[in-house]
Amino acid sequence: MVVGIIGAAGYGGAELVRLLSAHRKVSALSLGTVSLEGERIESHYPNFQGIVSASLVKPEEVLASSDLVFGALPHAVGEAYAKLSHEKGISYIDLSADFRFDEDEETYKAWYGKPFTHPELRKRSVYGLPELNRERIKSLASSGPLIIACPGCYPTGASLGIFPALAKGLAAGTIIVNSVTGITGGGREPQRAFHFPECSDSVSPYKVGAHRHGPEINRNIQEMAARSGLTAPGLIFTPHLAPMNRGILSTIYIPLGGQKKIEDIQDLYTAFYKDEHFVRVLPQGVYASTGRVRHSNFCDISVHLDQKGDTLIIASAIDNMVKGASGQAVQNMNIICGFDEKEGLTMTPSLF
Amino acid sequence: MVVGIIGAAGYGGAELVRLLSAHRKVSALSLGTVSLEGERIESHYPNFQGIVSASLVKPEEVLASSDLVFGALPHAVGEAYAKLSHEKGISYIDLSADFRFDEDEETYKAWYGKPFTHPELRKRSVYGLPELNRERIKSLASSGPLIIACPGCYPTGASLGIFPALAKGLAAGTIIVNSVTGITGGGREPQRAFHFPECSDSVSPYKVGAHRHGPEINRNIQEMAARSGLTAPGLIFTPHLAPMNRGILSTIYIPLGGQKKIEDIQDLYTAFYKDEHFVRVLPQGVYASTGRVRHSNFCDISVHLDQKGDTLIIASAIDNMVKGASGQAVQNMNIICGFDEKEGLTMTPSLF
Amino acid sequence: MVVGIIGAAGYGGAELVRLLSAHRKVSALSLGTVSLEGERIESHYPNFQGIVSASLVKPEEVLASSDLVFGALPHAVGEAYAKLSHEKGISYIDLSADFRFDEDEETYKAWYGKPFTHPELRKRSVYGLPELNRERIKSLASSGPLIIACPGCYPTGASLGIFPALAKGLAAGTIIVNSVTGITGGGREPQRAFHFPECSDSVSPYKVGAHRHGPEINRNIQEMAARSGLTAPGLIFTPHLAPMNRGILSTIYIPLGGQKKIEDIQDLYTAFYKDEHFVRVLPQGVYASTGRVRHSNFCDISVHLDQKGDTLIIASAIDNMVKGASGQAVQNMNIICGFDEKEGLTMTPSLF
Amino acid sequence: MVVGIIGAAGYGGAELVRLLSAHRKVSALSLGTVSLEGERIESHYPNFQGIVSASLVKPEEVLASSDLVFGALPHAVGEAYAKLSHEKGISYIDLSADFRFDEDEETYKAWYGKPFTHPELRKRSVYGLPELNRERIKSLASSGPLIIACPGCYPTGASLGIFPALAKGLAAGTIIVNSVTGITGGGREPQRAFHFPECSDSVSPYKVGAHRHGPEINRNIQEMAARSGLTAPGLIFTPHLAPMNRGILSTIYIPLGGQKKIEDIQDLYTAFYKDEHFVRVLPQGVYASTGRVRHSNFCDISVHLDQKGDTLIIASAIDNMVKGASGQAVQNMNIICGFDEKEGLTMTPSLF
Repeated sequence: MVVGIIGAAGYGGAELVRLLSAHRKVSALSLGTVSLEGERIESHYPNFQGIVSASLVKPEEVLASSDLVFGALPHAVGEAYAKLSHEKGISYIDLSADFRFDEDEETYKAWYGKPFTHPELRKRSVYGLPELNRERIKSLASSGPLIIACPGCYPTGASLGIFPALAKGLAAGTIIVNSVTGITGGGREPQRAFHFPECSDSVSPYKVGAHRHGPEINRNIQEMAARSGLTAPGLIFTPHLAPMNRGILSTIYIPLGGQKKIEDIQDLYTAFYKDEHFVRVLPQGVYASTGRVRHSNFCDISVHLDQKGDTLIIASAIDNMVKGASGQAVQNMNIICGFDEKEGLTMTPSLF
Repeated sequence: MVVGIIGAAGYGGAELVRLLSAHRKVSALSLGTVSLEGERIESHYPNFQGIVSASLVKPEEVLASSDLVFGALPHAVGEAYAKLSHEKGISYIDLSADFRFDEDEETYKAWYGKPFTHPELRKRSVYGLPELNRERIKSLASSGPLIIACPGCYPTGASLGIFPALAKGLAAGTIIVNSVTGITGGGREPQRAFHFPECSDSVSPYKVGAHRHGPEINRNIQEMAARSGLTAPGLIFTPHLAPMNRGILSTIYIPLGGQKKIEDIQDLYTAFYKDEHFVRVLPQGVYASTGRVRHSNFCDISVHLDQKGDTLIIASAIDNMVKGASGQAVQNMNIICGFDEKEGLTMTPSLF
Repeated sequence: MVVGIIGAAGYGGAELVRLLSAHRKVSALSLGTVSLEGERIESHYPNFQGIVSASLVKPEEVLASSDLVFGALPHAVGEAYAKLSHEKGISYIDLSADFRFDEDEETYKAWYGKPFTHPELRKRSVYGLPELNRERIKSLASSGPLIIACPGCYPTGASLGIFPALAKGLAAGTIIVNSVTGITGGGREPQRAFHFPECSDSVSPYKVGAHRHGPEINRNIQEMAARSGLTAPGLIFTPHLAPMNRGILSTIYIPLGGQKKIEDIQDLYTAFYKDEHFVRVLPQGVYASTGRVRHSNFCDISVHLDQKGDTLIIASAIDNMVKGASGQAVQNMNIICGFDEKEGLTMTPSLF
Repeated sequence: MVVGIIGAAGYGGAELVRLLSAHRKVSALSLGTVSLEGERIESHYPNFQGIVSASLVKPEEVLASSDLVFGALPHAVGEAYAKLSHEKGISYIDLSADFRFDEDEETYKAWYGKPFTHPELRKRSVYGLPELNRERIKSLASSGPLIIACPGCYPTGASLGIFPALAKGLAAGTIIVNSVTGITGGGREPQRAFHFPECSDSVSPYKVGAHRHGPEINRNIQEMAARSGLTAPGLIFTPHLAPMNRGILSTIYIPLGGQKKIEDIQDLYTAFYKDEHFVRVLPQGVYASTGRVRHSNFCDISVHLDQKGDTLIIASAIDNMVKGASGQAVQNMNIICGFDEKEGLTMTPSLF
């Protein structure tokens, strides 16, 4: 299968190149760009030297030559390529936010500043968090090419940490998600906030009460609650920046409305994810840590209670570039193409 | 004034050496140790080369030669030196936890595993958070030598962030303190958790629901609430480790029981600390960041609301080694000795 | 093939576990330890959770159950297991220094403080730098089980950078190797020098004129010079520590005895390594960087001249844990077992 | 004294603000900018909040209100302000390269791409490395206002490490300076090379054989050699980037032309700098380390021999922002104003 990547020179795109160049069902890659046409991917990423060598081409060329296309573009830029993919009859896996709110254009408009350009595409799109939506993804894929809206990095880790408690009716009040991300979360373009001397050796919050991933986590909470016939609890989400390359740690506070036993909740979480390869519920005594999922598609979850026993504290760790972006995109490709869901994603987390 | 430091070779002790060697009221330092007698401080800290040169001596020698003594020792080790200081008639400024729960021996015993060795000393001891207790410290000092229990690092930043809202009756429910510390918080002794490859490029929680600084923050909440004639709210405290040298960022969630305006709360915080030199309430739009208080005695506080307006989110940043330990100890010395409270603590935070 | 690893809980051993668990010719691993018997590898390395699950067993059990054994032990500890492997008739791939000086016991004794325990084993041992010794390794392997002395981390990167110039007679005087290593080079055991606050945000030299890898680089220089019928030049080697997890950058100064053209030397280096998959000679304008070989078995080399044109400056970058240790050990296994030399080592370097 | 800083919002300028705001002879600061007029320094550097509060003004305003001016500007931008200072009759301390080659316009032109704009100013300018030029600086200052050309960051540490051996005739051949800098060396403007994910966890060389500080080190070598009536040896200089905020470590290789004793050279270095407060020659067994001079004006030097005893290896460590830039500029101000040379520069290096 020939796979295209539009936006291959960004961090998300380059990580897709890295993952897909080792994927056994991918025979060739077509690397596209909106602004760097003619440049070589290995001149932008010398780590590819001798492994991947390709000129970046126009998006139209990618579309023409590919059997499936990934869009690794800022929001609002890629919708046109989703449309062209749809017209050509191939699937489009989107890493941007454009298709994440397909049943709620108002929220999309409020947070991203524009309405849907091609509302009709939403009939063929689905939110691509496999642990939430695998059957829906498969079902849609069975009737032809589709558009996958890959979840945001924060929503992936946060939602996976919340789901078991939420689905089982444990959440008795507003959920607080306190997240810390590594600097790759800010993308490849140099900015003062990500200039080494400005962000190294320092931790700080940003966009408190105003980050676009808040409504996306909320969207997932509502969907999961509705499935269980429950009223969705409120959400407070606070992102922070820490001096590391990769990883998001989300510390999640869920009021339980009364005292619970840690063993019961541990069992509940373990059972909930027992068939999910990419979610590892850690044993008691081990804390989720971004350093333990680095370069892998795992989401590690550790389960704790506060001292009084009436607030559940979940720690969830992902690699923001893999499970939080490109790895999850490949996982979605595997699902819709009928491949082993783990194909190309069997990396053991790096020790360091 | 000759000042003694027992435990001078630990991180807290060495930071005291750094601060006090530039303090204009300190004529000489006497550096003590419980295990490294005869070794030179500059062989342990080559940064002192040419500035501070001294052999480490026994605690008894420190006591004999000093007009005031700092104890920078693990808990339970220093109480004997507090006793000896008391008998000699000089003040003892303790960086350990031994005197932090003087009105609550049960909590101390429960969390530190032993009763008070010298309960009678508690008549002359006081919790040394100047922004909470300045008048009590001064009052006790006016009647003779005393013992200062310097607050823990997490409790300092967390309590200063909580106080204004708490004192003014805004806290309508359990307060959540989500804190991230740099690695110096773990002290000087090598441990696997603080081995560079294990902790660099990674963030994780630890001791969830079980950290000794939880009850200490709680102690401060109760005291502040009592002063305002209010019932103390509950507390959930979760510490995390991040790959930086210095700093604690505490993100504090305070339910307000209804919607408030950010301007009002900003004004409240600004007014509350208007006379406190070491607390900087940042203007709206600036986020507290550990990188902006590095090497200084400041506690930076930024004030935010969640999107719905009914939860106050406070970010509080300190340098754990300065305001969270040795700087605050010097601030206490200045108060009890009648010096300018800022003497020796006027360092501008480092740019990086 | 069942593969054993003695010393599996150290960094080198754990990296072997990570690489071999994805190796398609390895059917099972037997993980051994000299001090942690009965403990689980995944409790020491939670990143293995759900991927590798095994109890650490005694070295004797590893030997009994394996078809080939890796020794990831400190020097002088593993020679006994090499002996036992030899007696059992299986190959032993040693990551320690014990067999690196097999034709020069005096140097080994001088730098490692003891003579060979089993001198007779040296008839079946070979220095495992494939780019230097591939034919010798293959030849010895063809006559039965053998012992591979995997090169040290510094000698790997330094030697690969020196060889082309040396072999072609360009080196006209003493070669200077100025190397910088990441902290994993110090192994897993916590030490003050590798305690995060002591080594982060700092660079310094260590063991100047006294590091054991000096004589090993020298050994390789002598061997390569002898092959070309040349007199070996002298060597000065200075190791440094930098605040990164992985990687060694060696900056190598080779006096040329006269002016040369950069194009000629670039061509020489490119030609010299044209058949070596794991050595990437970078094009002019790209600098070797440890960040571009991270988690891969590549040695990147960039070729420069000083301003006057009479000193060759080579920059050589490896991942000290992969090409500098465990990856190269797997490369040697592939060679002696007749596998594709790249099997299990096709990882694209991480972007970050 | 009112002191002006033109270019106050850059890293060098802001570090000057930090140092001068604690300088007891400076009564007020006037902060100038070429592009950010009207903005507040504390909005660019929130660490100044509550300590320094000022609007950035035009350079002309700075010149009008100041008794002495610092230029912290890119080369070629500041010469006009040096001219205006001269005309006004006040001294100008320049952190750029514009006046570093005052006796060698050809070299300046070759490396900086333009001739001197105001050649006549060179009659009143001097290279401001106090340990080399103190008497010349003082002498020129005694006859009126002058221009100080503060040395570059690399040349400062490298030259101080070379001088004693050079002056005493020990250097018997080409000197190699292998330097590693922290990221603040690249200044405040975001660039891809200094974007956190690109430079963290990695070390690499850059501008090999082509860095502008090479000819500046060479200039110093020639001057020192000439003073001793010796022929200047050649120089090879290779800069590297390492993932730390501050600091330059230079490892310097000086061929001795024969074997020497380390004790003799240690004595020579110690004696050479015995009256220099800011140069600390470390005792044998202690290695110069950037982490031990952080935030101070010290240059630490450790003295070593290679194994054969015929090459001197000097390690020299400075804080590139202090002794390598703004601290040295203040040191020069102290000299020309007749203040204690240490005034405002007595900071003990930070522990971390």
